[in-house]
Amino acid sequence: MAHVRTIEWRDDHIELIDQTRLPGELITLRIDTVDELVDAIQRLAIRGAPALGVAGALGVALAARTDDAAQAARAAQVLRAARPTAVNLAWGVDRALTRMSDGPAAVLAEALALLEADVKINRAIGSRGARWLLDTLGDRSGGVNVQTHCNTGALACVEWGTALGVIRALHDDGALGHVYLNETRPLLQGARLTAWELAQAGIAHTVVVDSAGPSVVARGMVDAVIVGADRVAANGDVINKVGTYPLALAAARAGVPFVVAAPESTLDPATPDGASVEIEVRHPSEVLAPDAPTSTAAWNLAFDVTPADLVTAIVTEDRVIAA
Amino acid sequence: MAHVRTIEWRDDHIELIDQTRLPGELITLRIDTVDELVDAIQRLAIRGAPALGVAGALGVALAARTDDAAQAARAAQVLRAARPTAVNLAWGVDRALTRMSDGPAAVLAEALALLEADVKINRAIGSRGARWLLDTLGDRSGGVNVQTHCNTGALACVEWGTALGVIRALHDDGALGHVYLNETRPLLQGARLTAWELAQAGIAHTVVVDSAGPSVVARGMVDAVIVGADRVAANGDVINKVGTYPLALAAARAGVPFVVAAPESTLDPATPDGASVEIEVRHPSEVLAPDAPTSTAAWNLAFDVTPADLVTAIVTEDRVIAA
Repeated sequence: MAHVRTIEWRDDHIELIDQTRLPGELITLRIDTVDELVDAIQRLAIRGAPALGVAGALGVALAARTDDAAQAARAAQVLRAARPTAVNLAWGVDRALTRMSDGPAAVLAEALALLEADVKINRAIGSRGARWLLDTLGDRSGGVNVQTHCNTGALACVEWGTALGVIRALHDDGALGHVYLNETRPLLQGARLTAWELAQAGIAHTVVVDSAGPSVVARGMVDAVIVGADRVAANGDVINKVGTYPLALAAARAGVPFVVAAPESTLDPATPDGASVEIEVRHPSEVLAPDAPTSTAAWNLAFDVTPADLVTAIVTEDRVIAA
Repeated sequence: MAHVRTIEWRDDHIELIDQTRLPGELITLRIDTVDELVDAIQRLAIRGAPALGVAGALGVALAARTDDAAQAARAAQVLRAARPTAVNLAWGVDRALTRMSDGPAAVLAEALALLEADVKINRAIGSRGARWLLDTLGDRSGGVNVQTHCNTGALACVEWGTALGVIRALHDDGALGHVYLNETRPLLQGARLTAWELAQAGIAHTVVVDSAGPSVVARGMVDAVIVGADRVAANGDVINKVGTYPLALAAARAGVPFVVAAPESTLDPATPDGASVEIEVRHPSEVLAPDAPTSTAAWNLAFDVTPADLVTAIVTEDRVIAA
């Protein structure tokens, strides 16, 4: 992964890793149109809030190449709404749209600037988060053991990662112990993607089913829980992959720090609180087996809301917002 | 299911439903030896604390047919240890062993008495639990909506169920709203077994991934959480399928009753607290996909501990133990 980026611009199109094929196959998709990009986003070939921000901006660069301004604007709005919960997708689209009147080259330049900035932002989050954890936890012989959820690594960004970037930074400092990660049903971004990234990085790690994560915390097996975010509301409520809230409850009960690592672009002052966010509900077929009874329904909630009072600290590229 | 029992004695052997094949196939296994029974228990062809109690007793009836008392005693001890966490298995073995000196017919009679008693106990738990919930919750137009976990139905017992028995009793009273159930990774006893039982019973139900259960509770979608137990310690700590603890945390925060339904035989005064219980850790292959990186480990914790202070009430066939 050191030299492969999750998403890149090549000549006149986007290339991105098809995350639905990992860990079995490392395959790159070529994306030439906004329609193709929307499809890739909706089926989670690319996912993760920061990566979606970059994808949104690069998608506007694709759309900007038509002479039909109304058509380009429509395409941008479709892209903006491809997934509703992470604020970064809309943010990336809007950032690129600000340059639309300057022509396609200016839009592309803006998108590429966001892409390069994401790499730097991730490194800053990682080192700041690692430093904060080490300062807060004090000396931990054997290193800091952490629990995480979903995928917040290179695959959720352009490279490096947010919460997993903090974990990488601890590892680089020789200060990391063991990483426990939830498998993250229904699409197993933890077991498929995070485990793959940790294996590539040579970091010792153990997968647990999502419902065992709170027991890992309750049993004192970790010194901190660290997760990413898809949106942080103005009041500090954190919207992240479903399964984050149970870890936060367990961390609060155990007195273990619950840390959110995310870029400033994930903080959304326009959203007053978690209850105001549209939480994506995905197709039941991701949850139910083909042989499920016909009368069995599934409610495939993709994200949950962690109330601000359960969050110990939010680490961004610029600051640590502590409770 | 009305006329099929999960486990029965036929002439000279045990018959039990192979729960690993549901919901696709309803297949009955013939069990002639303790070795076959231990295998069926360990691969969860039969599971559920009350059913394991009956299986333990019937297994001793199989063992008692030899003339070699020492061999029979050894077989009983192997059976007793087939799964460590649920107290009922050891309890059923021990109950049958008390009649060993009276010969095989007496042992079988004791085991069959346990089996028939389980049916009556389940009905008593169901009606008592339903009554307690209706008294506690007061009038709920549209019926009582509940969240449950794993399988606590007919398939976990001989017939009817414990927590699912309470849900059935509410349904029979016309007092049930909607049932939300966790899929219950890694072996999906919720999505495979509970959904199948609810579909058979014509009860409206919706499956969620385990990590979404706490959000169902937090969003006010249910009036109560109701689960079974594999063991209740002397201090009231509840040991149950992993994923119970996060629901209890969510229920406590939401102010929603968290109710445990279990027979008196699940209450274990010899265990001081949850920390004293040997929690079964099962094979990593139940959690990890075949294409997982070779350096990826899994910790397959099968049960968790819900501290007594999070439990609103424990309903048995004899009483309601309220917090």
